[in-house]
Amino acid sequence: MRAAIFRQGDFTVGSIPDPVLAEGQVLVRTRACGICGSDLHAATQTEAFVDVARRSGGRFAMVQDRDIVFGHEFVGEVVANGPGTEGRFAPGSLVTSVPLTIVAQRVEGIGYNPEVPGAFAEYLPLAERMLLPVPAGLDPDHAALVEPMAVGLHAVEHGRVAAGEAALVVGCGPIGLAVIAALKLKGVAPVIASDFSPARRALAARMGADLVLDPAAEPVAARLEQAITPAGFDGSRYAQLLGLSPPRQPVAIFECVGIPGILQQLLELAPAGARIIVVGVCMEPDRFEPFFGIVKQLGMQFVLGYTPAEFAATLGHMAAGRIDVAPLITGRVGLDGVRQAFRDLASPERHCKVLVEPWR
Amino acid sequence: MRAAIFRQGDFTVGSIPDPVLAEGQVLVRTRACGICGSDLHAATQTEAFVDVARRSGGRFAMVQDRDIVFGHEFVGEVVANGPGTEGRFAPGSLVTSVPLTIVAQRVEGIGYNPEVPGAFAEYLPLAERMLLPVPAGLDPDHAALVEPMAVGLHAVEHGRVAAGEAALVVGCGPIGLAVIAALKLKGVAPVIASDFSPARRALAARMGADLVLDPAAEPVAARLEQAITPAGFDGSRYAQLLGLSPPRQPVAIFECVGIPGILQQLLELAPAGARIIVVGVCMEPDRFEPFFGIVKQLGMQFVLGYTPAEFAATLGHMAAGRIDVAPLITGRVGLDGVRQAFRDLASPERHCKVLVEPWR
Repeated sequence: MRAAIFRQGDFTVGSIPDPVLAEGQVLVRTRACGICGSDLHAATQTEAFVDVARRSGGRFAMVQDRDIVFGHEFVGEVVANGPGTEGRFAPGSLVTSVPLTIVAQRVEGIGYNPEVPGAFAEYLPLAERMLLPVPAGLDPDHAALVEPMAVGLHAVEHGRVAAGEAALVVGCGPIGLAVIAALKLKGVAPVIASDFSPARRALAARMGADLVLDPAAEPVAARLEQAITPAGFDGSRYAQLLGLSPPRQPVAIFECVGIPGILQQLLELAPAGARIIVVGVCMEPDRFEPFFGIVKQLGMQFVLGYTPAEFAATLGHMAAGRIDVAPLITGRVGLDGVRQAFRDLASPERHCKVLVEPWR
Repeated sequence: MRAAIFRQGDFTVGSIPDPVLAEGQVLVRTRACGICGSDLHAATQTEAFVDVARRSGGRFAMVQDRDIVFGHEFVGEVVANGPGTEGRFAPGSLVTSVPLTIVAQRVEGIGYNPEVPGAFAEYLPLAERMLLPVPAGLDPDHAALVEPMAVGLHAVEHGRVAAGEAALVVGCGPIGLAVIAALKLKGVAPVIASDFSPARRALAARMGADLVLDPAAEPVAARLEQAITPAGFDGSRYAQLLGLSPPRQPVAIFECVGIPGILQQLLELAPAGARIIVVGVCMEPDRFEPFFGIVKQLGMQFVLGYTPAEFAATLGHMAAGRIDVAPLITGRVGLDGVRQAFRDLASPERHCKVLVEPWR
């Protein structure tokens, strides 16, 4: 089958073996697959990505000296049911799945794995038990965005952010926008979004942000302080005696940028008692001053991915129209366009989410 | 009155003006005052201490070019009640207090404040409304340790650590030992303590640690993994599918060292889903790799000080014999001995808590 192959730091379109279905697998014809920020990380900082993933113990099988077919935000059409399947999905069924498959009882990641090609290819060998049907009425292409939107839902759930709290979302790429959508679903208010890009700020407003800030033009900390509502704070009297200014409303700050230096900026602008939820995936070493966190008694929660239940719930929200991802899709390319799309995605003005359509 | 004065990077014993009591203040004759790790920070890294304290917005009035009298872990004896006091404490009463006083409705910190001498001096002007009587039956000198022990209680409370969780305490100086005592009061088990110093490990065992480790001789992560008990973990199935190893029991890790590099070490050894509670006060920039936190979905909570209620509760625990600080007191010096004591405290083998007795 044809695939966009990442080889020695560049993309080439070529032919790779068709999937051979293992026990319990279904052959799925790829319809569309989003390009993820982590794909950009992996392609532009491959050595750092491979190194830190290995040292940190995550099961990312990516290695530098082997071909990789990226693609883990996919929707497709069932072509054939393999051995040992229950036939739950008739050929032609539209399906999506968490980016995992199962080969001989072993769970394999999809998207950064030299053993299992990702969805920048014509076909996928998926585990029947992990498949979710694309609900009638949902634009099938939108199902390719369940994965990034589920990351936002998980960040809010795992960060235990609830109605009554205020939220600041720093960075309005696809993940920041997913966080904004999840916060609105939770009834969090106000939801304040910050991004240097006018295009990204416009998208933040469309996803429901109550207040959208340009950090280059406005003092984010001061605007946050003004925007949060009085009362509700149960912080320590000691902090008040020390002359710190506790927030009048609990504040959750979502880091959705993922570059070195951003955490220090957030430690500096966070009000006392705030929690920072780290959704951005920074793969480089970072520098910060713990004392800012100490003197303001800040919390920091790192989050990753989502649970299968959160993935399914996100699909449900999208099917019910509670999350509309249409504005996020800014481009579509065939396999031949993958290389240029990775370049174009460097500019936040030009693109948000680009869909790869292997059959285009 | 006589005081140990910190002037241009060194200590000298000299005479400073006797306190003039403001409205609501009580004159207290200093009986004993502990030397705190933060005092060592302030004395050995004054520039960094002053700079980061100023930039981070805490109300620490210390400045480099003015004399400072340290000392904020004190117990003393009431000598006289000033104007506007209620006379709640008869002369001769033994009292302690959070290290704050009130001058003309303004709360002033004690211990790092050029305007208000700390307790390495013969007398203290304390706010009557903040005074706590030393309970009968408690060794009065032990009341000087309420302050550091309250820091441990607050770390456990603010970190929301509860029975059913396991805890690892990294660094067994006075604060680490205070955390161990607070964890035992909470019914947390096992409480695992780690320190390079044999003397500190012996103290950790005396404070009730269930398991004491020498990180130079044992793999702390592996011993932690063995020590925590099965079940109770509700972490995400996604993390398990990713091949991460979630802890079988929720784990809280207490950072009680406060030097650059320790947070990265903890991010590396922490089991998936663990929370790191940062009690150590690192005043320098630090370097870490966020990806370790991300892939294991770690939490980090910075804590500082205590509430007045926690301070009073700690005094109650000590009076009831639930916390015994006797083993922590390893030395006593007069004002003339302060300079040498600061040097001796560099060695964890020689000392844990040194009490300064201005009238000695």
